[in-house]
Amino acid sequence: MSLVSAKDILDGKYAVGSTVTLAGWLRTRRDSKAGFSFLAVNDGSCFNNVQVIADKSLNNYESEILSLTTGCSLAVEGTLEASQGKGQAFEIKATAIKVYGFVEDPDTYPMSAKRHSIEYLREYAHLRPRTNLIGAVMRIRNTAAYAIHSFFQERGFMWVSTPLITASDCEGAGEMFTVTNLDLNNIPKDDKGQVDYSKDFFGRHAYLTVSGQLNVETYASAFSKCYTFGPTFRAEDSNTTRHLAEFWMCEPEMAFTDLNGCAAVAEDMLKYVFRTVLELRRDDMEFIVERVDKDAIGRLERFINADFAQVDYTDAIKILETCGKKFEFPVKWGIDLQSEHERYLAEEHFKSPVVVKNYPKDIKAFYMRMNDDGKTVAAMDVLAPGIGEIIGGSQREERLEMLDKRIEEMGLNKNAYWWYRDLRRYGSVPHSGFGLGFERLIVYITGVGNVRDVIPFPRTPRNADF
Amino acid sequence: MSLVSAKDILDGKYAVGSTVTLAGWLRTRRDSKAGFSFLAVNDGSCFNNVQVIADKSLNNYESEILSLTTGCSLAVEGTLEASQGKGQAFEIKATAIKVYGFVEDPDTYPMSAKRHSIEYLREYAHLRPRTNLIGAVMRIRNTAAYAIHSFFQERGFMWVSTPLITASDCEGAGEMFTVTNLDLNNIPKDDKGQVDYSKDFFGRHAYLTVSGQLNVETYASAFSKCYTFGPTFRAEDSNTTRHLAEFWMCEPEMAFTDLNGCAAVAEDMLKYVFRTVLELRRDDMEFIVERVDKDAIGRLERFINADFAQVDYTDAIKILETCGKKFEFPVKWGIDLQSEHERYLAEEHFKSPVVVKNYPKDIKAFYMRMNDDGKTVAAMDVLAPGIGEIIGGSQREERLEMLDKRIEEMGLNKNAYWWYRDLRRYGSVPHSGFGLGFERLIVYITGVGNVRDVIPFPRTPRNADF
Repeated sequence: MSLVSAKDILDGKYAVGSTVTLAGWLRTRRDSKAGFSFLAVNDGSCFNNVQVIADKSLNNYESEILSLTTGCSLAVEGTLEASQGKGQAFEIKATAIKVYGFVEDPDTYPMSAKRHSIEYLREYAHLRPRTNLIGAVMRIRNTAAYAIHSFFQERGFMWVSTPLITASDCEGAGEMFTVTNLDLNNIPKDDKGQVDYSKDFFGRHAYLTVSGQLNVETYASAFSKCYTFGPTFRAEDSNTTRHLAEFWMCEPEMAFTDLNGCAAVAEDMLKYVFRTVLELRRDDMEFIVERVDKDAIGRLERFINADFAQVDYTDAIKILETCGKKFEFPVKWGIDLQSEHERYLAEEHFKSPVVVKNYPKDIKAFYMRMNDDGKTVAAMDVLAPGIGEIIGGSQREERLEMLDKRIEEMGLNKNAYWWYRDLRRYGSVPHSGFGLGFERLIVYITGVGNVRDVIPFPRTPRNADF
Repeated sequence: MSLVSAKDILDGKYAVGSTVTLAGWLRTRRDSKAGFSFLAVNDGSCFNNVQVIADKSLNNYESEILSLTTGCSLAVEGTLEASQGKGQAFEIKATAIKVYGFVEDPDTYPMSAKRHSIEYLREYAHLRPRTNLIGAVMRIRNTAAYAIHSFFQERGFMWVSTPLITASDCEGAGEMFTVTNLDLNNIPKDDKGQVDYSKDFFGRHAYLTVSGQLNVETYASAFSKCYTFGPTFRAEDSNTTRHLAEFWMCEPEMAFTDLNGCAAVAEDMLKYVFRTVLELRRDDMEFIVERVDKDAIGRLERFINADFAQVDYTDAIKILETCGKKFEFPVKWGIDLQSEHERYLAEEHFKSPVVVKNYPKDIKAFYMRMNDDGKTVAAMDVLAPGIGEIIGGSQREERLEMLDKRIEEMGLNKNAYWWYRDLRRYGSVPHSGFGLGFERLIVYITGVGNVRDVIPFPRTPRNADF
């Protein structure tokens, strides 16, 4: 049995009159009194179902076909025909149908054909991909992920699998998960009564990483253009629509590239991903427009066609101070921009995506390159209309003495960064990179309001189900 | 400054006479008494260096160029010329050279131009990508990784990011890392004096996953063809050349596919990846042949051209019992095949890759499909000459009553698998999948003998450096 996909059938890859076999899950069944039934079959390869005509000449028509309910699995062998109905061009006239699995109790099947709330679906993360909405979102997620790989690979970037388990406590252990194989009922203690991590698997306190950046910088110092794309972690007790304890992040890093070069790559990448999604997942995006967000396609099209605005942080502050709008968080030089400020800039002032550059050093990380003014660093955020910050990046400090000064100012342990400092001792280069939170990107594309609904199995405070 | 890559220069993408700018790191410098120097510059985009002719007409020739040492970073602007020497077709006649970074103390630069042992390089995981060997291996790794994505994407598989943090203790907690944000110096205890995991971040004991399989099965039950490709973890105290605590695994899962269909995809995938590596990373593979393993290219070519042998476990045991060879581990029906047995089958008996199928149920996992003989399950291993097992997979048990029987036999907690069992209650389908350890694949391709040298930052017992 050689299967064809619903996508290939609906894309017209097979001629009318061909014999095909399609396997999938029943979405709906409609019976005609004339002794035949319409079956809508979905195999997940695209948004749309394939209509199957099953009639009483099938030897299991009475015994099985008439008992099929939403969610049953089956394989249909039949002849491809031009569809008489509206909508699709093709349908299958079944010559044989094999039922693989019924639904145990159709009345209690959690994914019955009626519409379910998105909160309800979350409790069935193992079954929700069978719904129209989560099906569409996850196909879009897949397309966007592969587009990210393709964008970088086509441009000569090397994918680097930076480690997830790390002993570097780079941004404060408060937000990091501990990884251990100690018996927590029987923790070994040292002579000061503290945990003896020398007895742990890695011989010291190990964590789940919050970013692959410092590691990927080492590879960019050999291969020039690299990127990571993998999971990162935050042990933040944030029960919001924007936070996950485990989420995917893409972090490119480019040698011989300054902040403006970095911003240009960020712009190209976002537009490439959006173009790819609109091209390959038009079916799913049309459903999103119909059901979730009328503007979903328009928003991406405007983004693709926009010239990104560029503004210095200092100028952005002036814009916000003088715009006459009342913000919940007061604006003055030195603050970190809040979502309301970011959205005002992108949506009301510039009316386009905007790159804000050169932030005050005191609100940014130690590794960002100090500008000549001594007050700002070469950091950038890309703000998008409708969401605010979508990308954050910076040029990295490549001068050892400046880096050391920042490490000291921020009270970090210089010795812990010996290998990161080595990059500045041996053939140091100007280099830049950024981070893209992948789930927030999918939220932006789909208009689905909660990151928990764009990742297969969300991990959040008090939730590691499935 | 618009940069070109060494790869594009050496591939002949630019015409002789073009003005180009190449940035990278110095590998070697040779001075001529006639007042010029040959600089070999590498930017990591390919194996080979670009030769640069720098002469005393450069304003920094005396002051900087003559002081350049291995590892220094620079940008060369110049004219592309046909090379007079043997080897490469192109070289750059420099019109300007900007030096970005010197090497602090060339005499102690850890990656000096001499040859270093692979164990020594491991201590400098942040600098070793600058060497010929690790450079080649990591480019091959990148090419193989993207080839895996491309193989599946071209065939309509959906990439699924299965969760790394899990509360399912699927294969015995002994080998799993705990993930926690409890203060280990002050563990909350319940009234029985045991760890009170209800106070932990996820409200229960959470782990790092050992496999995404059970999760990806849920998505294959909606999208038909899926795969995971991400990190997995083992807290095994194994200090061997084959074990990592953190390693990447690719796990495809296919609905409506039996064990033979699964084996066919495994064969196609391996051949696709090997063909891609030989095509795109010929330069690196030729270096591997020269320096690491004379047979590296030949081995892949034979693999690509081989028809995989297929043998039942039971027949494989007979072959081993009657072959007259003395094995360290005695052979009889029921044993798990050891590496020596696997290699005998692939290298001496079949002289090709071989798929061994239908293993005794008692040495296999609960989710593998029971065969009609009641003694074996529909499991398979792909054995490759020169390494043994490279892929392991199975058809999954899709019948609820059989699955429950196995869960019970193996003393597992049925309730913990409620969602996995649901797949068998609601439109269950025959389905199969396999797992490919990505680092072992790179070891196979490169002949590099230790998995620690094919992943950027290896995590092993007592080692989470960098």
